Amino acid sequence: MKTKTALLLIDVINDLDFPQGRKLLRYALPAARRIASLKKRANRADVPVIYVNDNFGRWRSDFRQQVAHCRRDGCLGRELAVRLAPGEEDFFVLKPKHSGFYSTTLDILLKSLGVVNLVLAGFATDICVLYTANDAYMRGYQIVIVSDGVAAEHANWNRNALAQMRRHLGADVRAARSIRFGK
Amino acid sequence: MKTKTALLLIDVINDLDFPQGRKLLRYALPAARRIASLKKRANRADVPVIYVNDNFGRWRSDFRQQVAHCRRDGCLGRELAVRLAPGEEDFFVLKPKHSGFYSTTLDILLKSLGVVNLVLAGFATDICVLYTANDAYMRGYQIVIVSDGVAAEHANWNRNALAQMRRHLGADVRAARSIRFGK
Amino acid sequence: MKTKTALLLIDVINDLDFPQGRKLLRYALPAARRIASLKKRANRADVPVIYVNDNFGRWRSDFRQQVAHCRRDGCLGRELAVRLAPGEEDFFVLKPKHSGFYSTTLDILLKSLGVVNLVLAGFATDICVLYTANDAYMRGYQIVIVSDGVAAEHANWNRNALAQMRRHLGADVRAARSIRFGK
Amino acid sequence: MKTKTALLLIDVINDLDFPQGRKLLRYALPAARRIASLKKRANRADVPVIYVNDNFGRWRSDFRQQVAHCRRDGCLGRELAVRLAPGEEDFFVLKPKHSGFYSTTLDILLKSLGVVNLVLAGFATDICVLYTANDAYMRGYQIVIVSDGVAAEHANWNRNALAQMRRHLGADVRAARSIRFGK
Repeated sequence: MKTKTALLLIDVINDLDFPQGRKLLRYALPAARRIASLKKRANRADVPVIYVNDNFGRWRSDFRQQVAHCRRDGCLGRELAVRLAPGEEDFFVLKPKHSGFYSTTLDILLKSLGVVNLVLAGFATDICVLYTANDAYMRGYQIVIVSDGVAAEHANWNRNALAQMRRHLGADVRAARSIRFGK
Repeated sequence: MKTKTALLLIDVINDLDFPQGRKLLRYALPAARRIASLKKRANRADVPVIYVNDNFGRWRSDFRQQVAHCRRDGCLGRELAVRLAPGEEDFFVLKPKHSGFYSTTLDILLKSLGVVNLVLAGFATDICVLYTANDAYMRGYQIVIVSDGVAAEHANWNRNALAQMRRHLGADVRAARSIRFGK
Repeated sequence: MKTKTALLLIDVINDLDFPQGRKLLRYALPAARRIASLKKRANRADVPVIYVNDNFGRWRSDFRQQVAHCRRDGCLGRELAVRLAPGEEDFFVLKPKHSGFYSTTLDILLKSLGVVNLVLAGFATDICVLYTANDAYMRGYQIVIVSDGVAAEHANWNRNALAQMRRHLGADVRAARSIRFGK
Repeated sequence: MKTKTALLLIDVINDLDFPQGRKLLRYALPAARRIASLKKRANRADVPVIYVNDNFGRWRSDFRQQVAHCRRDGCLGRELAVRLAPGEEDFFVLKPKHSGFYSTTLDILLKSLGVVNLVLAGFATDICVLYTANDAYMRGYQIVIVSDGVAAEHANWNRNALAQMRRHLGADVRAARSIRFGK
C-alpha cells in the first residue's frame, strides 16, 4: 500500500446531538485517539486525508464553521473535534446522506487524486461507515477498515458491521497500528 | 398503502452458482413460496412488480434468457425461477452490483410510475436487499421489508440485517400476509 | 411561478483565467449587472439563491476563499465577484465538471428545499449552463433561462445554446426583468 | 486507438414516430449506411459495439422486441433497423433520457470491458449524441464523433453540435472511413 491510498474520516466532526449520542461517544473517544495518530502518519506520508462529513441538516455553512460549531463548550462531540481538527492540507467532502458517495464529489476527488485504496475510519460503523464502504466497493475501490478507529452505539452492532464488510466487500479489517502508509 | 407502491423482487432469478448457494437455497425456498403469493396479490391489485436482478456477469443476454437459464434442469435455483417466473405485465431492471439503484434505471422507472412506497423481497437479506434498501432510503422512499420473503445464508445474518433496516432506514419489517395492497 | 423556485448562479465567481477569458468578460459584465438585480429580487422574495461553482481545480479551499481569490486586485473576474458576492442566506454547491448536477449535492439540496422550478443564469451559456440545464431537464425540473443573464465567448454560441435549450429542454428563455418571483 | 475502444450506437433503433421524424430520416439514412459498415469493421476487430437506445417510453419490452417493433412494415425507421440490426455479440443498454449515461448501466459496462475510448454515432447529433458525449467527457473518456455517422433534423443543428463537441469536449470529429480499429 504505497501510493494511491487515501484515509477517509467519516462523520468525525460531529456534535453527537442525537438520542444515543452519549452511547456512541463512549466508543468513539478511544477510536478518535487512534484515528488522530493514524491521521498524523497519513499526513507525514503525503497520503490524502479526506473528511467526509454530514452537514447536520444545514447547507449554508462551510466545513470550517462546522468544526467551530463542534468545538464550542458544552458540545458533546467537542473532544472528537479537538482531537481530529482538520489541517490546511486535508480535504473535505459534504455528505448529505448515509453514504459518502451518494450525491457528493467524493468519487471525482478520489479519481483526480488517483486513489484506488481507501482506509476508512469514523462513525457509526453500522451506518455511514458500512454504506460508504459498500458504495466504495461497488465503484471498485480496495477497502481497509480501521477496526479500532470505528465505533457504533453498541459493541455488537460494531462487530456485526465489521463482519459484514469483511464478508461482502472484501474489506481488510485491521487495527490502526498495523496499517502502513509506506512512503 | 393504497396507490404508489411497487413490489421489488431482488435477485430472485438466480442460478445460485456460488460457494454457499445451497445454504441460501434452504432459506430461499420457503421465502419464494411467500413471495409468489404476494406477487400474485400485487399483480391483481395493479401494483407494479419489478424484478431487480443481477446479470450473473453476462451483459449480452436479456432477462428472459436469464429466466430460461435458471429454469434449465440441474440448476440449483430452478425452483425459485419456476415459482417466481415474471409475467408479461412485470418490469425488470438489470442490476450490475449489490444495490438495485447503483448504475441502473430503477429510480427513473419508479419516478415514471409515481411510486413512493417500496416493498422489498428477495436475496440475500444482508447484501443486495440491505444495500438496495439503504439506497432507497437515501432517495426518500418509504420502505417495507417482507420479513418472511427474504433470506440469507445464515439465520443470524438475516436477523441482523432486518434489525439494521428497522433501525437506520425506518423500514417497516413485516410478514407477507400482513401486507395489504389495497385497491 | 410562486413558491418552489430556486435561482441557480452558474460559475459566476470566476477568475476567468483561461485563454478566452477576456472575450467572455465582455458579455459577462452586462449579464452580471442583470443577475445582481435579479438575485436581489430573489433574496427579497425568499427564493433560494444557489451558487453552483467550479473550484478551479483546487479541492481544499472553500467557497468563501474562492470569492476572496476572485476579488483580489488584478483578477480578470474581479468585477463579477464584487457585483455577485454571495450573502449569508445564499447556498453554494461545488461543481467539479461541466454540469452542476454531476457528482454534486445539488439535486439533494433542491429536493430538501422542495424546489421544482429552476431559473438559470451564469457562464458560459453553451457549456456549463447548457449541460446543467439538460441534467435538470432529465431530472424533471422546469427550466427558465435568463436570456440576458447568461454569456458565452461569442454571440452566436450564446444564441445557438439558447435555441437548443428552448428546443430540447422545454426551457422558457426570457429576459431578467420579465421574471416574477411572486411572494 | 488499438484496444480499449467501444463503438456506441445511439438511438439507431428508432421508430422515428415524432413530429419531425421524416426530416431526421433524410439525414439518418445515409448516416446509417456508414454506421453499418463501421459496425462491421468494429465487430471484425473485436471492438465492442454497444447499442444505447431509448425504450420509447415502454419499460417492459426488451431490446429484441424493440428491434422487431422498428422492423415492421410501415415503420418510418424500418430501414435504419434493418441496416443496423444488432448481432449476437453486440451489447445493449436501455437509456431512459437524453444521455446514455444518466440512470443507466453504461459506465459500469464500459469499465467492465476496460474501455477508455468511445466512438459515437447515431441520432440526433444535437440532443442524445451531444449530451451522451458530454457525460462521457465528464467521466474521463476520450471521444471520437463519426461526423458522417450522425444526423439531426437540420444540417446547421448538426454542424453546430459537432462544433460544440470539438470545442468543449475535446472530441475528435472525423469521417467513418478515417477511423481505424487496429487489431
